[in-house]
Amino acid sequence: VHTHSTYATSFAQARRPIPCLGTTHADAFAGPVPVTRALTRREIEGDYEVNTGKVIVECVRGNRRERQADHGPGAGVLVWGHGPFSFGTSVEEAVEHAIALEQVARMAYQTLAINPLATALPRVLHDKHFHRKHGPKAYYGQNKS
Amino acid sequence: VHTHSTYATSFAQARRPIPCLGTTHADAFAGPVPVTRALTRREIEGDYEVNTGKVIVECVRGNRRERQADHGPGAGVLVWGHGPFSFGTSVEEAVEHAIALEQVARMAYQTLAINPLATALPRVLHDKHFHRKHGPKAYYGQNKS
Amino acid sequence: VHTHSTYATSFAQARRPIPCLGTTHADAFAGPVPVTRALTRREIEGDYEVNTGKVIVECVRGNRRERQADHGPGAGVLVWGHGPFSFGTSVEEAVEHAIALEQVARMAYQTLAINPLATALPRVLHDKHFHRKHGPKAYYGQNKS
Amino acid sequence: VHTHSTYATSFAQARRPIPCLGTTHADAFAGPVPVTRALTRREIEGDYEVNTGKVIVECVRGNRRERQADHGPGAGVLVWGHGPFSFGTSVEEAVEHAIALEQVARMAYQTLAINPLATALPRVLHDKHFHRKHGPKAYYGQNKS
Repeated sequence: VHTHSTYATSFAQARRPIPCLGTTHADAFAGPVPVTRALTRREIEGDYEVNTGKVIVECVRGNRRERQADHGPGAGVLVWGHGPFSFGTSVEEAVEHAIALEQVARMAYQTLAINPLATALPRVLHDKHFHRKHGPKAYYGQNKS
Repeated sequence: VHTHSTYATSFAQARRPIPCLGTTHADAFAGPVPVTRALTRREIEGDYEVNTGKVIVECVRGNRRERQADHGPGAGVLVWGHGPFSFGTSVEEAVEHAIALEQVARMAYQTLAINPLATALPRVLHDKHFHRKHGPKAYYGQNKS
Repeated sequence: VHTHSTYATSFAQARRPIPCLGTTHADAFAGPVPVTRALTRREIEGDYEVNTGKVIVECVRGNRRERQADHGPGAGVLVWGHGPFSFGTSVEEAVEHAIALEQVARMAYQTLAINPLATALPRVLHDKHFHRKHGPKAYYGQNKS
Repeated sequence: VHTHSTYATSFAQARRPIPCLGTTHADAFAGPVPVTRALTRREIEGDYEVNTGKVIVECVRGNRRERQADHGPGAGVLVWGHGPFSFGTSVEEAVEHAIALEQVARMAYQTLAINPLATALPRVLHDKHFHRKHGPKAYYGQNKS
C-alpha cells in the first residue's frame, strides 16, 4: 500500500528514517522505518516504476540482513523523496500498517521538536513490545481469531 | 486511563515532564506532569505490565512527597518512552483528565515552539487557578451537583 | 469573549504579542495583538477576576494611546499566561473576532517556524488592508446591510 | 483562485518560495512555487487590487522565462505577505491546484522542520514526475476522458 500521508511523506522528503522513539512504534515495527537509496539517473529515465519497486525490495532485504531477523508483519519503507509504502499478508493488514506508520511518523516528528536529542528506545524495551504482540511468543492485545 | 494521544505521548517519548506554562494547565493539574523513571532491564524482562504499574505509583508518590501536597483530582503521569496515564475518582473523571492532559500537552508544545525559554507560571498564580476549582475552597466553574 | 483556543493561548502562554505578519491579520486587527502585563501577587490574591478585567482595559487603553488611534472593531488582547479575550459591538462580532484571532495566531506560529526572522507587514500595507474593510472609507468585502 | 489556506499563506507571510522537496510537489508543479515582489508604496496607495494582479502576472512570466518553459497546468504563485493564488484552464482545475498547493506547502513545512537542510528534488526526478502526468508524453494517473 502506498500513501502520501503527510508525516510519513515528510520523513521521506527529509530523507530521514523514522527512529523508534516510543513503545507505539515498537508495538508495530521491529526497528526504525528505513529510507531507500535514491534512484540513479539511469533508473529514473529507464523503467521508473519497476525500478522504484526494486529499491524497495533492496531496502527491505538489506534491512533484514542487517538485523539478522525477519521484519515481521508491520514492515514499512520510505522511498527517498517520495513517500511511505507498507506491506502485510493481506491488503487489510497493509492498510493497518500504513495507518500505524503515519501515527508513528507524527509522534516522532513531535518528539524531535520537543527534544531534538531524543534517542531510540532501548533494544530490550523495543523487543519486549514487539514480541508481546507479534510472533510465536505473542501474548498481548486483542485476540484476532 | 491510558491513551496514546499524540502530544502527551510525544512528551513521554521525549522523556520530558510537561511544564505548567499557563492557566489551562493550572486549572487541571496541581503541578507539572511528571515522567516516570525508565524501567530496568530486569523489570522489563520480568513482569513488565505489573512493573509499569509500580513505577507509576512510585512516581505519583514521590511527586506528592516532594510537593508536600495531595496531587488533587487531576493527577496524570507520563510513562518514560511510552505515554500518558491519568487517574480520577471515577472512570469518567479519569477520561476527562486524559483529555485535559492532551490539551495541556499540545499547548505546552506550541508555547515552547514560540518561545523556547518560556518559564513556568508563578506559583501564586498556579495555586490560585488550581484551588479556585478544586478542594475545600473551590468557588469557580460549573456546579457539578 | 474568552476562549482557550490553542494557538492564541500558546502566544499568551509564551507571553509574546502576535506580530502582524500578513494581510489576513491586517484585515482583522489594526496592529499586533498585545499581551497584558502580569498581575502582581497582591492582585492575584485579592479580587482576581476583577483585576484580570482591569489589566485588559489597561492594555487596550495603553495600546490605543500609543497608536493614537481607535482599535477598531477587531480588538483582541492576550492575557499574560492565560489566553485570548476579544471584543465587539455585539456578542456575534466578538465571536467572529475570537475566530479571526485564532486563525491569525496559527498562521503567525507557522510563519515564524518557516522564517524566524519574518518581520511585520509594512505599515502602509497594513493600513490599506485594515481601512479598506473598516471605518468610514471602507470599500471592500461583503456588504453587511 | 485565491485562498487563505494556512500553510501556503504562511510561506507567503514568511516571504519564502515553496521548494520542491518531494514527488508530490513534482506531480503538480513544474518547479518551486514563487513569491511575487513586494508592492511599492505607490502601488499600494494607488489601484491596489489591480496592481496585485500585475505583480502576479509579472511573477508568472518572469518564472517561465527563467525556466524557459511553460508553467504547465499546476501553476500557483504566493503573493508577498498575503497568500496563494492558483490558476487553471477552468475554475475546477484552479481549485484542484489550490488544494494541491496547500498540501505541498504543508509537507514542505514539516520536511524543513525534520531536516532544515533538505534540498530540492534532483531535476531529473522532478521532470520525470511532472511529465508523466502532464503534457504530450503523459502516461500516468487516472484517465480524465
